[in-house]
Amino acid sequence: MLLKELADRIGGVISGDPDIQITGVSGLKEARAGDLTFLFNKINMKDAVRTAASVLIVSQAMKEQVSREKDRPITMLVVDHPQLAFAKALELFHPTPYVSAGISDRAVIGKNISTGDDVSIYPLSNICDNVSMGARVTISSGVYIGEGVTIGDDTLIYPNVTIREKTQIGKNVIVHSGTVIGSDGFGYVFEKGTHHKIPQTGAVIIEDGVEIGANVTIDRATIGNTIIGRGTKIDNLVQIGHNVKIGSNCIIVSQVGISGSVEIGDGVVLAGQVGVRDHIKIGNGVIVGAQSGIGSDIPDGQIYSGSPAIPHKTWLRAQSIYAKLPKYIRQLQGIERKLEKEEHPDDEQ
Amino acid sequence: MLLKELADRIGGVISGDPDIQITGVSGLKEARAGDLTFLFNKINMKDAVRTAASVLIVSQAMKEQVSREKDRPITMLVVDHPQLAFAKALELFHPTPYVSAGISDRAVIGKNISTGDDVSIYPLSNICDNVSMGARVTISSGVYIGEGVTIGDDTLIYPNVTIREKTQIGKNVIVHSGTVIGSDGFGYVFEKGTHHKIPQTGAVIIEDGVEIGANVTIDRATIGNTIIGRGTKIDNLVQIGHNVKIGSNCIIVSQVGISGSVEIGDGVVLAGQVGVRDHIKIGNGVIVGAQSGIGSDIPDGQIYSGSPAIPHKTWLRAQSIYAKLPKYIRQLQGIERKLEKEEHPDDEQ
Amino acid sequence: MLLKELADRIGGVISGDPDIQITGVSGLKEARAGDLTFLFNKINMKDAVRTAASVLIVSQAMKEQVSREKDRPITMLVVDHPQLAFAKALELFHPTPYVSAGISDRAVIGKNISTGDDVSIYPLSNICDNVSMGARVTISSGVYIGEGVTIGDDTLIYPNVTIREKTQIGKNVIVHSGTVIGSDGFGYVFEKGTHHKIPQTGAVIIEDGVEIGANVTIDRATIGNTIIGRGTKIDNLVQIGHNVKIGSNCIIVSQVGISGSVEIGDGVVLAGQVGVRDHIKIGNGVIVGAQSGIGSDIPDGQIYSGSPAIPHKTWLRAQSIYAKLPKYIRQLQGIERKLEKEEHPDDEQ
Repeated sequence: MLLKELADRIGGVISGDPDIQITGVSGLKEARAGDLTFLFNKINMKDAVRTAASVLIVSQAMKEQVSREKDRPITMLVVDHPQLAFAKALELFHPTPYVSAGISDRAVIGKNISTGDDVSIYPLSNICDNVSMGARVTISSGVYIGEGVTIGDDTLIYPNVTIREKTQIGKNVIVHSGTVIGSDGFGYVFEKGTHHKIPQTGAVIIEDGVEIGANVTIDRATIGNTIIGRGTKIDNLVQIGHNVKIGSNCIIVSQVGISGSVEIGDGVVLAGQVGVRDHIKIGNGVIVGAQSGIGSDIPDGQIYSGSPAIPHKTWLRAQSIYAKLPKYIRQLQGIERKLEKEEHPDDEQ
Repeated sequence: MLLKELADRIGGVISGDPDIQITGVSGLKEARAGDLTFLFNKINMKDAVRTAASVLIVSQAMKEQVSREKDRPITMLVVDHPQLAFAKALELFHPTPYVSAGISDRAVIGKNISTGDDVSIYPLSNICDNVSMGARVTISSGVYIGEGVTIGDDTLIYPNVTIREKTQIGKNVIVHSGTVIGSDGFGYVFEKGTHHKIPQTGAVIIEDGVEIGANVTIDRATIGNTIIGRGTKIDNLVQIGHNVKIGSNCIIVSQVGISGSVEIGDGVVLAGQVGVRDHIKIGNGVIVGAQSGIGSDIPDGQIYSGSPAIPHKTWLRAQSIYAKLPKYIRQLQGIERKLEKEEHPDDEQ
Repeated sequence: MLLKELADRIGGVISGDPDIQITGVSGLKEARAGDLTFLFNKINMKDAVRTAASVLIVSQAMKEQVSREKDRPITMLVVDHPQLAFAKALELFHPTPYVSAGISDRAVIGKNISTGDDVSIYPLSNICDNVSMGARVTISSGVYIGEGVTIGDDTLIYPNVTIREKTQIGKNVIVHSGTVIGSDGFGYVFEKGTHHKIPQTGAVIIEDGVEIGANVTIDRATIGNTIIGRGTKIDNLVQIGHNVKIGSNCIIVSQVGISGSVEIGDGVVLAGQVGVRDHIKIGNGVIVGAQSGIGSDIPDGQIYSGSPAIPHKTWLRAQSIYAKLPKYIRQLQGIERKLEKEEHPDDEQ
């Protein structure tokens, strides 16, 4: 594809030769002649200066710095949002047009199944009774779809996923391998020395545009539904407890654990390995730092860190003192000794 | 079911109309006329006052408060233990009578298999040679049962579980999807620049009444057995290392990691994301707070928190100071300056 | 096997009867007459003194102590490295000679597959098109091998593993059950209120001799490769993000999370539940304590702990103060009051 054709599709202003033939997209270091590459961040400036790529996607600010530092001139595509332009370029060079694989006769298909046009059901998958799926749905090998599950158009389920009975999945959802949706919530009543299981009779609702990573677990509600809101993205190995409600467009990073009945607003970011206690409410737009432990409600728009989590700025200040505690304690002891000496000057012998 | 019939089965004293027809069990907010609902906790009092349900399960203490606050009278079932009554009511309205599905001809069945009455072996499961299972055992789709595994009566294995060779599973055990039991322990000897694998030749024993969540990993012992004691409940994404021994009726919450050769007593509670170092002993009845790191033995009956974990009360006090450290350090510096000034009053110019 | 034959194979000096017949390898407590057992650590001395085993593997130092404390003499095999000798003895008594199971006609085999001699492809596995595997490769039941994957000689893939398209796996690799290799990296660009997915077009390379635990997730690179270096060992439930590069002979303990584009040197040890922020560089030989959070680069050879991680010795000192903070703060307040009283002696009434 010529650079000018690419620019027509993804936008941006060409600085250099618009007729360069682009043959691929690559990283700064790995790129060869013919490749399109990208610079998002100043810390990679050195790699940008040395890259063998033919075209560099940059912001206006970066463009000027590259021009100054680079010996050999390079053609650049100057855009407002380099990461977005890069994502769009990757899509152009790695198109994945959907092709229906049909329904394999080596899949196990239950009774009363409804399928939209052009679905793909691969071998060794198991679709239980009364499942309903929209158009262009992909069910990969080794996937289990429980009784009464519904799946919207264009949803893609990767191999070895388990979706338990009654789960409702929207359109354009992606579920990565090994993930389990609809496992029983972790609920017991202690009586006469044993933990008596509370039946988990609810379900899970995954709204449109959600992406769920690999080996994630999302428990069904005790009664009612566990809900993952529209456009929310969940990374690998995340735990979501029973009756949790997550809003739209949240980012839940790997290994986060969300206990039962937690309510999370829209646009929330939970960084890696965060834990959230049961029955907590987290407001819209909240950001929580990695490894934090959320033990009480957080209002809209706050940034929190620490375990237990406190406002991020407070945490930064406290944290900066932590490593110096031994020094401060020596200082404290020094003052104490000095004062004692002043009070009892004759104690010294 | 009439309320008086329900009360006969689950106990409790009716305050109101015993002849109400109950049509379902629901949450306080979701309940409609005809539903039975429940109030466990004062923080939901407002929802209890507004609920559209026909019958409310409450304790005696809660009952009086509801009576005072609710405009419209509601029939109540007054019980000693509302959560237990709720669990029992759920069971009555969502009965799951076991029905044998038989042995699918699309399952892979090894040689010398022994099965009790009325087992269910679903399509696409794989039962290796010399497996023995009791009556009413369920092996779901995509499950792998390794050579020589034994499984007791009424045990339920959900889809896509892996149970490696020689594992022994008791009666009334539930294993959720994606879980792996009997993977090799993580043991190496470093020699001549490489990690030399120690053969993991032991096994895993899961005693009666254990429930294991989704995507859990339980490693086999190097020699001997990894043991999960009777009635212990394990949440999703928990890691249990080789040669670990867990006692009876423990609660192991999601994403806990237990290193090799740890010994845990009876009735222990490990909250979410706790980590336990190898070769640690945790006594009976110990409770450990979320995200704690256990680096040394804990005697019977203690409550611990923090990373590294310390007695919970000590941790609470230390934690309450943490966020205020900057203030205290300023105070300390203020004292230091004041004392220096007193000693060297002429330093100021 | 006679002890003298064993000693010929695994080394060591016999102290006692070289003609003892060894019938098995067992733990100190579980051992019976005829068993070989081992003592690695003084804390198990009591068990060593009481063991019913016929032969004890020990170091020279331990040997003398056992001789002093044990009433009944026991034959010992004295070695330089008892753990290594134990590992070798286990291998002798639990040999697992590879036997090819051939290619099951109940596996799903794609087009244009290349297989070395004596592979084992079990029922209910799914090998996609253009897969290439070396000699003596084992693909267990329920495994998915995506299009274009390559697998080296003697590699063993346990049941229910998912290996996505284009992944390259070396020789002598072991992948435990439930693990997902090649899932999409977690990358989005936020635009007009939604998270726009960045295509993940790269792959994963697993070098020779790597072992990967159960339910691990390793994401494919956005572009380029995620790389796990030769001889590195990864425990259960570990998360490895897109474009991560891990060097050779590292130890990554359970539930560690490594964010995107992290670079880790050779011989690094990350203890359990460690989290590493994206784009961090960790030098050769670094050791990081359990539950630490790595937020900035760590140079070669350092030992770090804490969240955020700091040099281990600094952390030890700060940590030892933490539980005593309430006492120190009371001391500080006492000094403050004393000084105020000295300055304003008349304030007291």
